[in-house]
Amino acid sequence: MANYLQENQNRFIHELIDWLRIPSVSADPKFHGDVLQAADFLKQRLEEIGVDNVELCQTAGNPIVYGEKLLDPALPTVLVYGHYDVQPADPYELWDSPPFEPVIKDEKIYARGACDDKGQVYMHVKAFEVMQQQGGVPCNVKFMIEGEEEIGSNNLAIFVKNNKEKLKADVILISDTGILANDLPSIEVGLRGLSYHEVEVTGPNRDLHSGLYGGAVANPINVLCKMIASLHDEDNHITIPGFYDNVAMLSAEERAELNRVPHSDEEFKQSIGLPATYGEAGYTTVERTGIRPTLDVNGIWGGYTGEGAKTVIASKAFAKISMRLVPNQTSDEITALFQRHFESIAPEGVTVQVRPHHGGEPVVTPTDSVAYQAAAQAMETTFGKRPVPTRGGGSIPIVAMFKSELGIDSVLFGFGLDSDAIHSPNEHYGVFNFLKGIETIPLFYQNYAALEKAK
Amino acid sequence: MANYLQENQNRFIHELIDWLRIPSVSADPKFHGDVLQAADFLKQRLEEIGVDNVELCQTAGNPIVYGEKLLDPALPTVLVYGHYDVQPADPYELWDSPPFEPVIKDEKIYARGACDDKGQVYMHVKAFEVMQQQGGVPCNVKFMIEGEEEIGSNNLAIFVKNNKEKLKADVILISDTGILANDLPSIEVGLRGLSYHEVEVTGPNRDLHSGLYGGAVANPINVLCKMIASLHDEDNHITIPGFYDNVAMLSAEERAELNRVPHSDEEFKQSIGLPATYGEAGYTTVERTGIRPTLDVNGIWGGYTGEGAKTVIASKAFAKISMRLVPNQTSDEITALFQRHFESIAPEGVTVQVRPHHGGEPVVTPTDSVAYQAAAQAMETTFGKRPVPTRGGGSIPIVAMFKSELGIDSVLFGFGLDSDAIHSPNEHYGVFNFLKGIETIPLFYQNYAALEKAK
Repeated sequence: MANYLQENQNRFIHELIDWLRIPSVSADPKFHGDVLQAADFLKQRLEEIGVDNVELCQTAGNPIVYGEKLLDPALPTVLVYGHYDVQPADPYELWDSPPFEPVIKDEKIYARGACDDKGQVYMHVKAFEVMQQQGGVPCNVKFMIEGEEEIGSNNLAIFVKNNKEKLKADVILISDTGILANDLPSIEVGLRGLSYHEVEVTGPNRDLHSGLYGGAVANPINVLCKMIASLHDEDNHITIPGFYDNVAMLSAEERAELNRVPHSDEEFKQSIGLPATYGEAGYTTVERTGIRPTLDVNGIWGGYTGEGAKTVIASKAFAKISMRLVPNQTSDEITALFQRHFESIAPEGVTVQVRPHHGGEPVVTPTDSVAYQAAAQAMETTFGKRPVPTRGGGSIPIVAMFKSELGIDSVLFGFGLDSDAIHSPNEHYGVFNFLKGIETIPLFYQNYAALEKAK
Repeated sequence: MANYLQENQNRFIHELIDWLRIPSVSADPKFHGDVLQAADFLKQRLEEIGVDNVELCQTAGNPIVYGEKLLDPALPTVLVYGHYDVQPADPYELWDSPPFEPVIKDEKIYARGACDDKGQVYMHVKAFEVMQQQGGVPCNVKFMIEGEEEIGSNNLAIFVKNNKEKLKADVILISDTGILANDLPSIEVGLRGLSYHEVEVTGPNRDLHSGLYGGAVANPINVLCKMIASLHDEDNHITIPGFYDNVAMLSAEERAELNRVPHSDEEFKQSIGLPATYGEAGYTTVERTGIRPTLDVNGIWGGYTGEGAKTVIASKAFAKISMRLVPNQTSDEITALFQRHFESIAPEGVTVQVRPHHGGEPVVTPTDSVAYQAAAQAMETTFGKRPVPTRGGGSIPIVAMFKSELGIDSVLFGFGLDSDAIHSPNEHYGVFNFLKGIETIPLFYQNYAALEKAK
């Protein structure tokens, strides 16, 4: 198998680069045409390698690319999920090379989506090609690659509800997460949920001169800052009443196990250039990002932000505020708590609007399943080390939705690194990681088919 | 005198409108050409009406338009100060008509700069024309109209220091303030100073994924909000140590006198669409805007502010923060206090930069001067009511600078209204106010010449 991969790896890389050139940003309507082009590009690649019935499934939003290879009902079926849409790339000026003009530097592919998630999806496409070229795929395979993961996967949820028969499978394989290091394989078994909001604080009915009115009107920006500041106490606990009610506390043993993952606060601080760690009192960095919920402002704006000085009191101030959730919080529950609380703390003299964006549920995936064992063995073979189970801080809302709608567990078979700067300027994906994925995925299929057969 | 004004008032209005079409925004370099054009427009209008030695005095920034009419050393000399630059007009989308395409609606001229300060400056230009046409100006006159008032007048200060002989005068006449109402004339005798800063909070060395890092790093936006919130206590007192040390407390009598100016909190709230007044505990609205210092955020930005959702922790967050000062605070003193305090409250894990913009000194002008009496009598004649002395909340740093550099007092002979929305969308200036100014200013010159002679 290695041979075919080695012989074709340059072509694989450059096919990915062609895909990365298409700015498939789902959050911004002006890229809609590019999103469709990226979907069509994937459809063609899947057809080329022998995937059957490839189609662009229309939704109320961006199409879902679906394809399948159904060999034998007796074989287990693997449903591969991923997404071809990418995060917005701004601020563009912070990129060393344009986000949609991919370059390879120091053995890394630099581009928006290089890792999240086009690069990782394309590992599965090329792994399929490798298997086809070298004896065929040992399982039935279904591909379902969506175009709205970065904006909440709302239409995918509807698609799944309406296509339960079509999507029948034994396991869902997802590469949209990472490993601890290139010499330290790991598999995420926990993901945080998400509750994301845009808030709008309105004060006076127009922008006012800060000299004539300053001191006598509630300044919406000052008020918004005060409201946001009040959402954490001095121990960095979140102050929203009821916020922690459903948080599943881990046992001392579970916390000890969790903290056994290789982690260095020193390296963590160095990697992001900070002199100190920070966060909820009483928890380690691993716990703060893995098993504890958070609240972060993702964006804020209001008043005069141009060059120079303008002495204005703005009529409105805005912020985007999101919370990461952990079992057993639910997105709906936290969204309601946040909305009620944030509106309740508005002082007299301003009005507050909370507009919930998308949400996602936290999830924990089993480590005792056949599929997890197949994945762990595959990584052990290609990395020469047994992977560590980890609890990731990110959210893939779809994983919980698959479980509830289809009753299927997922394996989070990601090959990225925390340092890949996904969602940031200079996002990149290691050539090593891309090729290692293509090498490892076929082993998963082999192991999975064998273990299922042996059951 | 009324005749010539009545016969020519439409021409006067349309000359002003032509001037307002030029977007002389000093804060934004992209309007530099327009700023120069606005200066040249004024130079030509002054030459047309017989002002002598009109010149564009070059500075390190925008030119100062200077001109004079020196009739007789025995006559008192009036120095007219104003500015031809305007505030930025954004957000453009909130204007009912484009800010630089003036329209007359309901007897008001709508345009950026209509009141602040082109409209009020142009009253002096046309008042001079009226006097010339009807027996001549009874005093020596000097015009000094600058182009950087909205960005701090730094170059004017240098110009004044270097031209004390040229600028010798007995009084400075400035129309850049307002009256309480069109049937309630007033003259501002107090102005607040200004200390304006841009602050930058830096956390991680790049934007981070809020899922992978959320909970374990200091989020610069959350931190900035917390720092800003801490600048006021629950009584809306400013918490910067030493901030109030030099604030001149008024006597009970002075406060009573001050609160005697006609003011209705109900009308105040209605005019800006707020259900409640707001501000420092223990002071009335009139006091909060007149004799008390303030701290307002004029702008804030950071993270993702585009459409949709981006789950990012920004590397940096920014705000523009300004303080209004009252006697005997000084801009340098407060700037130093703010900078030291704001840097001192930065939590570990972030770095803070404070960049002071421009400042200005608070000032109180005398009400017992000949010039003030001449102005009050002129208004009494044209409004049929004696004007009330008021303490305005705005800042005209130049007034304190004139006093210290030239030793000359100013008369703040403004005809605007608080409702003119200066610094806001839909800035406008009443045709009544524009013409009333042109009618009243010549009476000031008559009264002033007569009173000086009688001394």
